[in-house]
This record gives sequence, structure tokens and C-alpha cells, in this order.
Amino acid sequence: MSCPLCDTSGGTLLWQDARCRIVLADEPDYPGFLRVIVNAHVKEMSDLPAVAQQALMGAVFAAEAALRKVMQPDKINLASLGNVVPHLHWHVIPRFTDDPHFPNPVWGARLREPPHAAPPDLDALLRAALHPQAPCRA
Amino acid sequence: MSCPLCDTSGGTLLWQDARCRIVLADEPDYPGFLRVIVNAHVKEMSDLPAVAQQALMGAVFAAEAALRKVMQPDKINLASLGNVVPHLHWHVIPRFTDDPHFPNPVWGARLREPPHAAPPDLDALLRAALHPQAPCRA
Repeated sequence: MSCPLCDTSGGTLLWQDARCRIVLADEPDYPGFLRVIVNAHVKEMSDLPAVAQQALMGAVFAAEAALRKVMQPDKINLASLGNVVPHLHWHVIPRFTDDPHFPNPVWGARLREPPHAAPPDLDALLRAALHPQAPCRA
Repeated sequence: MSCPLCDTSGGTLLWQDARCRIVLADEPDYPGFLRVIVNAHVKEMSDLPAVAQQALMGAVFAAEAALRKVMQPDKINLASLGNVVPHLHWHVIPRFTDDPHFPNPVWGARLREPPHAAPPDLDALLRAALHPQAPCRA
């Protein structure tokens, strides 16, 4: 069966290794919304061996650290849902008190309109913040 | 400032060690909704040292494995949000295609009414599934 995360990168590629990739998602309401996507078609975290779980979470926490460095969000939201696309991926979302849904989850009720302002060179800033690190240790 | 996850257990205690606890949340729409709560008042995963990150995620994945063993959900949803209560905690949610929101996140639009049926002794089954394991290695 076709899977969009097997067939496409899932966003603007910022970092990758043999195991996973970090992409900037196309989410106009949420500049800086990152996804960490396992390259293999796996459904749940508990389907991975411990070493692969740790490497993947290392990438998630590196994405979180890069967002905190570049954007100074009020909160980070992390989620692995996969109800629609059951190919393991993590949402790493910088949240601001003036963003469209705060304090609701981004999937909850919308409370205001404009997205939080972000620098125009955000992808370059995030790429630079990610590259000194080696979050996915093979 | 008062914090509900410092002041209370946050649910029916199923498992704990010095670092964190696993509780069955009081979420009538979602039997088996577990929360893994860090005992210390910490805000973000990247505020923890790597060894504590790994121990906490070990507890999250043990909670996921226990839910899969006991309830055979169609999907597991994992999330650390904390926009309202900025004390690090993970939602570990068994999802079923007939649950009130599937395939939406549990924070999204409700699509149907009754919760997915669950065994009456669910907390005992989950406690038994968790106890052979030692997910939080100190």
C-alpha cells in the first residue's frame, strides 16, 4: 500500500542519517513545526529495538533543542500519533502564547488567527542549529 | 506556585520508582489512558540529562507495551504537551477505530459517542503487565 512517508520526504529536509530524517513541515500556522520521521516503515515505538528507540528520541530531543535555541518558544509539544499515516513520525512543535491554538493542542479548538511571527530564514537557522549535533547515533 | 502534578498523583498509581510514576488517568472516554509523570517539577525533555531522558522514555515505552498487551489497540498515541500544566508528563493513549475521535487526535473533533469497551478489571491487568518490567532504571 502506498505510504506518503515512504514515497516523499514529508517536508523540507534539514538533517538526516541512515535511520531517520528531520524535516520542516509545511504548516503555515506553525513556522518551525518539525517532524522527525523514521526511514523504515514501522508503526509503533515498541516495534523498534531499544537502540533504535534511543537513537530516534535523540533526534527528537535534538530537534527540540534546535527549536528552543532558534525560536525561544514558550513550550515545546511532542507527539507521535500516526492514526492517519501509520509510519512512525514525531511532531516537534514550538508553541507560543500568541499562536493560533495556545494553550490548546494544535489539533484542538482554534482561539486566534495570525501565526506567531518567525524569521524569514528560519529553515537556514534551524539547519545550522541541527548540524553541529549528531542526534541519530547509529 | 501550586502545581497539580507536584501536589497529587495525577491518577490511579500503577507503577513508580524514584524518578517517575505511571498512572491510569481519569478519562471516561478513554479507558486505559495512561500518563507517565516525572516526579521532579521539570518543564521540557531537553531540561533533563540524557540518562534521565532515556529512563523516562523507557517508562513511556513500557506503558505502551503494557497497553498493547492488555488492550490490543489499533494505534498508540504518545504526546508530551504541558501547555496548561508545565510539569513534564507523557500521555500514552490506546486508540481504537471505534473510539470517540479516531482517526483525529483525542484533542480534535469528536466523531462518535460511546468509548471503546474495556474490561472492568483494566487497572489490575495493566498493573500486572507493568510490574514484571523495570522501565525506569535509576
